[in-house]
Amino acid sequence: MTDRAAKPPFRRNGKPGKGRTAPPRAAWRDRDPDGPVILYGWHTVAMALQNPKRRFRKLILTENAARRLSEDGIKTRITPEIVRPNEIDRLLTPDAVHQGLFAEADPLPSPDIETLTQDGMVLVLDQITDPHNVGAIMRSAAAFAVKAIITTARHSPEATGVLAKAASGALELVPLVSVQNLARALTRLNELGFVTVGLDSEGSENLSAVALRQPLALVLGAEGKGLRQLTRETCSVVARLDMPGEIKSLNVSNAAVLALYIGASKLGLMA
Amino acid sequence: MTDRAAKPPFRRNGKPGKGRTAPPRAAWRDRDPDGPVILYGWHTVAMALQNPKRRFRKLILTENAARRLSEDGIKTRITPEIVRPNEIDRLLTPDAVHQGLFAEADPLPSPDIETLTQDGMVLVLDQITDPHNVGAIMRSAAAFAVKAIITTARHSPEATGVLAKAASGALELVPLVSVQNLARALTRLNELGFVTVGLDSEGSENLSAVALRQPLALVLGAEGKGLRQLTRETCSVVARLDMPGEIKSLNVSNAAVLALYIGASKLGLMA
Repeated sequence: MTDRAAKPPFRRNGKPGKGRTAPPRAAWRDRDPDGPVILYGWHTVAMALQNPKRRFRKLILTENAARRLSEDGIKTRITPEIVRPNEIDRLLTPDAVHQGLFAEADPLPSPDIETLTQDGMVLVLDQITDPHNVGAIMRSAAAFAVKAIITTARHSPEATGVLAKAASGALELVPLVSVQNLARALTRLNELGFVTVGLDSEGSENLSAVALRQPLALVLGAEGKGLRQLTRETCSVVARLDMPGEIKSLNVSNAAVLALYIGASKLGLMA
Repeated sequence: MTDRAAKPPFRRNGKPGKGRTAPPRAAWRDRDPDGPVILYGWHTVAMALQNPKRRFRKLILTENAARRLSEDGIKTRITPEIVRPNEIDRLLTPDAVHQGLFAEADPLPSPDIETLTQDGMVLVLDQITDPHNVGAIMRSAAAFAVKAIITTARHSPEATGVLAKAASGALELVPLVSVQNLARALTRLNELGFVTVGLDSEGSENLSAVALRQPLALVLGAEGKGLRQLTRETCSVVARLDMPGEIKSLNVSNAAVLALYIGASKLGLMA
């Protein structure tokens, strides 16, 4: 099974199925590839508003959502446009649960790999592009106090919306380190003293049996394709996740959370 | 964050954006709610073809897919309709990766709760409806040799397609026990000697610290809503998953795989 190619829940042509073509709504596609980030949904927007590093370009709220933010003591920082829920519906597809909050913001600054601290865990994602999976992985990373996620992937603003929603606020908590060349980044992690552990169903050792220490980098590949050859060769160890059933591979976000749990347990981070 | 409402990757009106309205394609929606099951993608269809209990109504393959099945020694069982890839594209939305295989089949028989064996683990899903999440959970269940998944949810044929694809063949391996009333089913599991453990971030004990034994039922609720009151009250224990980071809740399929790993480890099933 390949990494599921997701359809971002953004309308490109306004409401479909009405017998007329509405004018194009959002013009994200015409902007630079690094921005803006689209944010929608309660957790996602509320967490972003509470992140002093996040710069907002636009904030669209329903009256209810604005009241709820105010009741929770969350400042809107820029003047929100107050609209009826269906105005936000029109910016998104029907499967997008926006809960009355929609924003456009600048991406957060991408920290440099050299600034990573010499403790805890980082995650390295090798060509995992599906925004639902990356979002779920970010959420689990925040739950396991991961220091950073290192990736080559660039997401369109549309995909970032899906990713941010699936991350449920984790985008504000886990720094995303964007690199040009993953093998070079892994080499640098090795030099910096990280144990770099690639996860692969063909790995030579079971992760539970591998001696792990801090700082630890867990490296995951896309479903179906797995780790690229050069990625695999650059890892200190390639390990598998042994499981007792007939299916031997998991959804990539499920594999990630299991690796994080095993890693955190072995590093004594769970106490 | 609520259980993501998914948009099934099925077209209802043929190709969009061509300046004309194609006639409706599949008429699944007019059929009975228990069928058919839609299956697409390599693993999903290949595993189903190898399951003697699966009855096929229709099989649509590309020439390449038919050749690959033949090379792998997988019998098609019914005469396939051989089509060009875009004929299958037209049955699905662009995000559906069908790999040249599409089928309509009968649902597998739903076993009775009374027939469950007195060992290992079962999963109980309390109103988890998102087919991507249920599919990923089924895949993890197959990886951890789960004996059955008990649920009240009924999926439309369209949603079953998404679920089956995300399950990556697990639909053929893990029996789905469909019940009318979840609290009654849990009461019966308790009577049958199961330890029924509800997972909830407000649980009184950390799952890793709970004494577990076989047979074990792990009970999961939908994201956002969690376990319903009556479900919670009917469980022998309500446990949480302690994690060291700032976010305390996971995507439901990530929570499921973690609970399965901890359960399997404590029951000695991982050896």
